[in-house]
Amino acid sequence: MKLAKLTTGILASLALLGSQTAAAKVVRVEMSVVEKQVVVDNAGTKNKMWTYGGTIPGPVVRVTQGDTVDFSLLNEKGNKQSHSMDFHAAIVDVLDEFQGVRPGRKKDFKFEAKYPGVFIYHCGADAMSEHISRGMYGVIIVDPKEGYSDAFPKPDREYVIVEGDLFEDDATPSERTNNDKWKGALINGKQFHYDPVHDQNASMVLESKPGERVRIFFVNAKINESSAFHPIAGIWDKVWDNGNPKNVRYGMQTINVAPAHGVIADLISPEGRSSNNALVDHQMKSALNGAITVLMNKPDADPKKGRNGNLVL
Amino acid sequence: MKLAKLTTGILASLALLGSQTAAAKVVRVEMSVVEKQVVVDNAGTKNKMWTYGGTIPGPVVRVTQGDTVDFSLLNEKGNKQSHSMDFHAAIVDVLDEFQGVRPGRKKDFKFEAKYPGVFIYHCGADAMSEHISRGMYGVIIVDPKEGYSDAFPKPDREYVIVEGDLFEDDATPSERTNNDKWKGALINGKQFHYDPVHDQNASMVLESKPGERVRIFFVNAKINESSAFHPIAGIWDKVWDNGNPKNVRYGMQTINVAPAHGVIADLISPEGRSSNNALVDHQMKSALNGAITVLMNKPDADPKKGRNGNLVL
Amino acid sequence: MKLAKLTTGILASLALLGSQTAAAKVVRVEMSVVEKQVVVDNAGTKNKMWTYGGTIPGPVVRVTQGDTVDFSLLNEKGNKQSHSMDFHAAIVDVLDEFQGVRPGRKKDFKFEAKYPGVFIYHCGADAMSEHISRGMYGVIIVDPKEGYSDAFPKPDREYVIVEGDLFEDDATPSERTNNDKWKGALINGKQFHYDPVHDQNASMVLESKPGERVRIFFVNAKINESSAFHPIAGIWDKVWDNGNPKNVRYGMQTINVAPAHGVIADLISPEGRSSNNALVDHQMKSALNGAITVLMNKPDADPKKGRNGNLVL
Repeated sequence: MKLAKLTTGILASLALLGSQTAAAKVVRVEMSVVEKQVVVDNAGTKNKMWTYGGTIPGPVVRVTQGDTVDFSLLNEKGNKQSHSMDFHAAIVDVLDEFQGVRPGRKKDFKFEAKYPGVFIYHCGADAMSEHISRGMYGVIIVDPKEGYSDAFPKPDREYVIVEGDLFEDDATPSERTNNDKWKGALINGKQFHYDPVHDQNASMVLESKPGERVRIFFVNAKINESSAFHPIAGIWDKVWDNGNPKNVRYGMQTINVAPAHGVIADLISPEGRSSNNALVDHQMKSALNGAITVLMNKPDADPKKGRNGNLVL
Repeated sequence: MKLAKLTTGILASLALLGSQTAAAKVVRVEMSVVEKQVVVDNAGTKNKMWTYGGTIPGPVVRVTQGDTVDFSLLNEKGNKQSHSMDFHAAIVDVLDEFQGVRPGRKKDFKFEAKYPGVFIYHCGADAMSEHISRGMYGVIIVDPKEGYSDAFPKPDREYVIVEGDLFEDDATPSERTNNDKWKGALINGKQFHYDPVHDQNASMVLESKPGERVRIFFVNAKINESSAFHPIAGIWDKVWDNGNPKNVRYGMQTINVAPAHGVIADLISPEGRSSNNALVDHQMKSALNGAITVLMNKPDADPKKGRNGNLVL
Repeated sequence: MKLAKLTTGILASLALLGSQTAAAKVVRVEMSVVEKQVVVDNAGTKNKMWTYGGTIPGPVVRVTQGDTVDFSLLNEKGNKQSHSMDFHAAIVDVLDEFQGVRPGRKKDFKFEAKYPGVFIYHCGADAMSEHISRGMYGVIIVDPKEGYSDAFPKPDREYVIVEGDLFEDDATPSERTNNDKWKGALINGKQFHYDPVHDQNASMVLESKPGERVRIFFVNAKINESSAFHPIAGIWDKVWDNGNPKNVRYGMQTINVAPAHGVIADLISPEGRSSNNALVDHQMKSALNGAITVLMNKPDADPKKGRNGNLVL
């Protein structure tokens, strides 16, 4: 998945750019809401889902701290629901920018990304439990304006992993709210998306070369439960809560990620050997129903994976 | 709600004040346990609740680190249950100070508030799950003896938000323990207490002026589940785990607050515009059943709200 | 419980010891998997459990950062299940070192303990939810190579507390995965193991003398839910996330410990008096079904408890 539908431009409007540094950009982001049948596992099972741009998660938005996001949400004609956009990276008015948009209508708003880190975005329209659990979520990464440092080193690979819920297709909003008719966990939109060990239909894995620093941008999009994010056969070298370089923890086995929260977590692949990690939600209910991702560490790792904006496989 | 029933005096007993600084005070706190029908939503629905002083949460206790709390608990004659007091800010003997008090009896104890922060207090009598979930909880704030600093700046407004459970009125202790017959989340004692957006019977909101630093003293009084505390349309500027100035995290979207834990979280209201945040438990089950609070940011914000001890609206 | 079945030796192989300091050791650890009836409460109730070495938790492994663990897992002849070993302190290959071992077979592997802290180890064989919840877990402590410091002071007592699940004996793997037929919480293998207050059959408590620094190595082995670890009538003086000296928080009432995670938490027993704490999972469901541990603070505390490797009572 590419950073789709994003165009970047430098606006001349200094008024708009107020508190930003000279290098701050305006990043244009357009998304359309598409209600459609979406494949939710490696076997090809389709469910009735609601999406930003047709995929789950929606497109990755990536800006630098201080940039302004110039955003448009189009709720496509023919959709049946009102939808909205709630960027967790934005400081705006919940009753204005984040309000619902009816089918066939468009909403525009701008915000400056003031805090660095990894943030969820999601639909906030009623019933929010249904909108999120039908797939209306994605990730916005706000890179720190200071760039990399000893405290926040440049990684060799970058991957986005979003964990979400899969409910039975006919689950009502209140059933979803109560976590009834819960079926499984989605990793970037599919159960066992990158886990050929547990799912013979899986065809992809994350990859790294021995010795590489692999950075995971992790977001928990489950609507009710924390995720216990753990790399089997590894240890998170560093974890940044909310992805903020100032919020570092060292040598962590498991991270307790609240619903609608994000972390950046680095794993250093072993040198001098090939190996595999399984990145799991160590909550057994989620792990054994979809939340396992294989990271394969080998000398001939695909040089394109986890690089040049190719964050979501 | 005022800081009710608190009287302050400087005791001459230096022996008692042992490790305290010259400025340490003895703060007298008296509470009565009242078993009564309490309104639990904005429509006026009453439930059979048990309370400290007649309100849910009980009165806010606020002292400075090093102060001694000189406490009395009266279990009113006519009550049917034994009750107790468990201050999370106290270092005492669970089998002495925190023991149950029978109806018509009183218990006194003293403790020095050695650690700064925001702490829950609650009843620990059997079955604890019933005593807490019928409303027996409140907040004690222990201001750091160093006062404010760059690392812990003075806020413009201060609010207390306590999230608790609402069970069906006839839920048994073991049903409550297992989270069966759970109905909703209470914010300072009522579902959607300060949320006129989701509840037309709601009449109050939290308020701030543009540019103000708004400090939330948040306590999770739910008996079984974490709270995912998030300010919709905003980002916590700083969060202090347990409210201790040394435990700071920066730029957080969501805080994972364990049951019976507290945090201090600051939000800076946008300058140059009016706006609204919705402070939610991002666990959908709690949010959509009561745990949403509107913070309205506007130039004509009520100067009395969130000031001069007026922390609980 | 002693540090059973561990033998230590200095290997001459410098190649193996690669990145280690001169003092790094090779620590030989052997465990046998024993499927047997195990007593799971103080009344003597037995359940069908699966164990490392016959006890729940398995033997405590304790090494120093930089040491190499030279490990053998024997799955005893006569067992019915394949089993495996997943050390959270190891950086290896999930598809090699952590693979399942059939009954009657043995598996050996080595790893260097690179990160300090307290880690869970557990069985990862299918269905993992059953293997863990039938008792296949334990603790490995990796002491920091820097030793003690002002930031990580030497404790007077050390105790290991592992919280696990107890399901109905006939609960199927998928019932366990979904947390159905859950009966209670085990503390070091038994409900209310060290709590004579709530269980008259309990005969043991943790002990300390007034003024002592008591260090708890806490691991959450519950398969689905966080633990809200709190010392009733006390405050954690310092908490180190994952047990890493660099991850310190101060003055914490409750710690939100993800499933399959660990923390080190220090409590300083009050000076000048006897007292009692109750170390609980403040999730009522767990506390009232087994997760309460009494720490008795008294001048005549048993000098052998919590000392000289006697970490699990």
